[in-house]
Amino acid sequence: MPRIVVIGGVAAGMSAASQAKRRDTNAEVIALERGNDVSYGACGMPYNIADDGRDMHDLVVITPEQFRHTRGIDVRVRHEVMAIDAHAQTLRVRDHAAATDYELTYDKLVIATGAVALRPALPGIDLPGVFVLRELTDGAAIKFTLEQTNAHRVLIAGGGYIGMEMAETLRARGLAVTLVERAPQVVPGFEPVIAAVVRETLQRQGVQLLTGVGIEAIEQEGAGLRVRAGGQTLAADMVLLAMGVHPNVALAQSAGVHLGATGAIAVDDHQRTNLPNVYAAGDCAEAYHRVLQQPVFIPLGTTANKQGKVAGANAAGADERFKGIVGTAAFKVFDLEVARTGVGAAEIERHGLKVISAVSHHSSRGHHYPGAARLTTVLFAERGSGRLLGAQMVGADVVAKRMDVLATALHAGMTLADIEALDLSYAPPVAPVYDPVLIAASVARKALGKAG
Amino acid sequence: MPRIVVIGGVAAGMSAASQAKRRDTNAEVIALERGNDVSYGACGMPYNIADDGRDMHDLVVITPEQFRHTRGIDVRVRHEVMAIDAHAQTLRVRDHAAATDYELTYDKLVIATGAVALRPALPGIDLPGVFVLRELTDGAAIKFTLEQTNAHRVLIAGGGYIGMEMAETLRARGLAVTLVERAPQVVPGFEPVIAAVVRETLQRQGVQLLTGVGIEAIEQEGAGLRVRAGGQTLAADMVLLAMGVHPNVALAQSAGVHLGATGAIAVDDHQRTNLPNVYAAGDCAEAYHRVLQQPVFIPLGTTANKQGKVAGANAAGADERFKGIVGTAAFKVFDLEVARTGVGAAEIERHGLKVISAVSHHSSRGHHYPGAARLTTVLFAERGSGRLLGAQMVGADVVAKRMDVLATALHAGMTLADIEALDLSYAPPVAPVYDPVLIAASVARKALGKAG
Repeated sequence: MPRIVVIGGVAAGMSAASQAKRRDTNAEVIALERGNDVSYGACGMPYNIADDGRDMHDLVVITPEQFRHTRGIDVRVRHEVMAIDAHAQTLRVRDHAAATDYELTYDKLVIATGAVALRPALPGIDLPGVFVLRELTDGAAIKFTLEQTNAHRVLIAGGGYIGMEMAETLRARGLAVTLVERAPQVVPGFEPVIAAVVRETLQRQGVQLLTGVGIEAIEQEGAGLRVRAGGQTLAADMVLLAMGVHPNVALAQSAGVHLGATGAIAVDDHQRTNLPNVYAAGDCAEAYHRVLQQPVFIPLGTTANKQGKVAGANAAGADERFKGIVGTAAFKVFDLEVARTGVGAAEIERHGLKVISAVSHHSSRGHHYPGAARLTTVLFAERGSGRLLGAQMVGADVVAKRMDVLATALHAGMTLADIEALDLSYAPPVAPVYDPVLIAASVARKALGKAG
Repeated sequence: MPRIVVIGGVAAGMSAASQAKRRDTNAEVIALERGNDVSYGACGMPYNIADDGRDMHDLVVITPEQFRHTRGIDVRVRHEVMAIDAHAQTLRVRDHAAATDYELTYDKLVIATGAVALRPALPGIDLPGVFVLRELTDGAAIKFTLEQTNAHRVLIAGGGYIGMEMAETLRARGLAVTLVERAPQVVPGFEPVIAAVVRETLQRQGVQLLTGVGIEAIEQEGAGLRVRAGGQTLAADMVLLAMGVHPNVALAQSAGVHLGATGAIAVDDHQRTNLPNVYAAGDCAEAYHRVLQQPVFIPLGTTANKQGKVAGANAAGADERFKGIVGTAAFKVFDLEVARTGVGAAEIERHGLKVISAVSHHSSRGHHYPGAARLTTVLFAERGSGRLLGAQMVGADVVAKRMDVLATALHAGMTLADIEALDLSYAPPVAPVYDPVLIAASVARKALGKAG
């Protein structure tokens, strides 16, 4: 009876454990999670925090007990792996509840240690009232503070997805929100024309914006905090650091697992690391980017779940391949959906890609149909061939699921002409006769023609 | 200066005329429309009828005057082409306003005569109070009757897209609606599991349903009508025939234009008919179905617009190709979106395709996210290869734009495994971590595996 051990019990980890057990019901599958919770939908935390009627533990999809009893997986929470001996195939595990260490051997190991929120080494960064939103306990701590204290002024440091989602949540709770973003615009991964739409919505919803400014220090002042940023001093009751994440790889690295150029664990298409019998999956690992044709670090829940499944299946003896990502991501902020796929300006510059880009605007639904909104799309295509390389879209209607059409086009290597010819659905309640995706491709083809 | 004449002034016709003029600004472009209106969004009529605040002419996108003055296109309404002499390249045109006929020569001709609503030869089918919904005047007549008379009981004959859309509209206006469909289920082009969801919604919304029953006769009774159907007699103030359309090809046929096996005009990928310098486009013409690899008659606005553009461009000397359809269609009925792409059971049987099919159910959004609805999906894939052949989906959330992902997959010839590996967007407000499309592909793959 082989023993498959998984380190980490969230998206990739529990996908791996579940899949391993499904593939080899005789295997002993053990999942070790250093925190209190496994199998929770971390992406749902902003929406849970918005809703006093819900408990943070609603986000737990399957409890450790359920894993144990219905799936036959030995889930151990508050068990932290302190060291991996890849040669002996043993782990040193600390049982935090019992305050003891023990040794655990494995036949196959899946590392799914995730990512940790960035906390830059600034004065006051660890003061009470300074939060990140990464683990369920983070979400619970923020919610507790909002419910149980008089906190009414929040400063969010970082204008990415989490910053956007939490700005919406906190405004919905009636708080005064100031958002500070070091880049010259919010959502720095998006084109300025997209970011401008987001900015306008944030301002209309009463979010105070400071862009081109980074936070420099946090100080206690009475019961509150003072944040220094670009020469200004901003008062807040809470500070939320939403500055991105880095892969949690120290344990793996000290065991001899190789990292890739991105700093995350290098894996092949079977989720194998360089060490025998050791797999990695999820936010601690790289993912192969099909457009860039090289590994990237884009930690997202979808990828974590898929990689976890592949790692778990292969740890149980299967021969599954992770087919890579195309860089699709989406978020909602107030009434807007914002989404992207493929490469953006930063990747284009870094990789020296020769591209054309085109911006288009269009209605999301038929002429006069209620709920129609103006969508804005940016497409990037390879100069010459016209092959789609990337897309971004924003607007107050269906955007993310339109982006999925373009993500699918990227998977298939379609050109703008191919996309313009797609037979997409039409009815006034769901689209104009030429869907925004088709219009965007048509506009971009004209830019391609002019570029020669 | 070449003269390009277009017969028909709605979707395909005005697309052709506009594109021809754009491609060759020196061309003389004449569009002949036998009705009063051109360039209207016929698909918007049910929604316009629902809204007393709007005039039916809101659906006109560009008026004849605008075509003339801003686009340089000579649009002639109430001009009906009575005969085509393809050898002499002349048309006999009746000017209904002036009650005169004249001859018009052409260098290139585009036939875009559309389709006409089916009116089976039943007793009473032409009685006052019996309507179809096809042209703008049809919509205006229905709306006038609803606004100006005491009509409060409507019988809809036909449970397809128009029947569904009008059931919603008429219920929204407070009318009693009875829907009679000859097939054993509503939306006969869909699988029973999809039709059952639609049926449940129709019933919940108070639509009286009679399936497996065709209308047999209509009689006047006082100010109202009596409809005989399957041994029953149903009282109604209005009857709406929504029984489908047939291509309007008599004019073309009498000029020697060949029809295809479907009864619509046969065209090549340049929208050329068998006659020199004569093109056809839109609801009067066939379209190449990329999955079936043969021409079909699926008259839809999107196809009409695209074919019109190709026909107009080529009439003006370009070399454009219509790349075909995959059979995508969508409609809304009450809170449901319903959509399909590719082949369904009827085509599978007719073409003897060896397929597997699989039904899946899933949530449209993240765990607990407000507005999440249960979606139901059916996929058809080729036995053995697992290549996607068709898909259907229903539910009270984003369905049509998810279907577009599967339509794109059909264009690309993707297998279920390819689809399951797609990097689709995820955020709790827009999708669960595994989008319904991915789940559907995964479930279908299991069916494929079992089928061997």
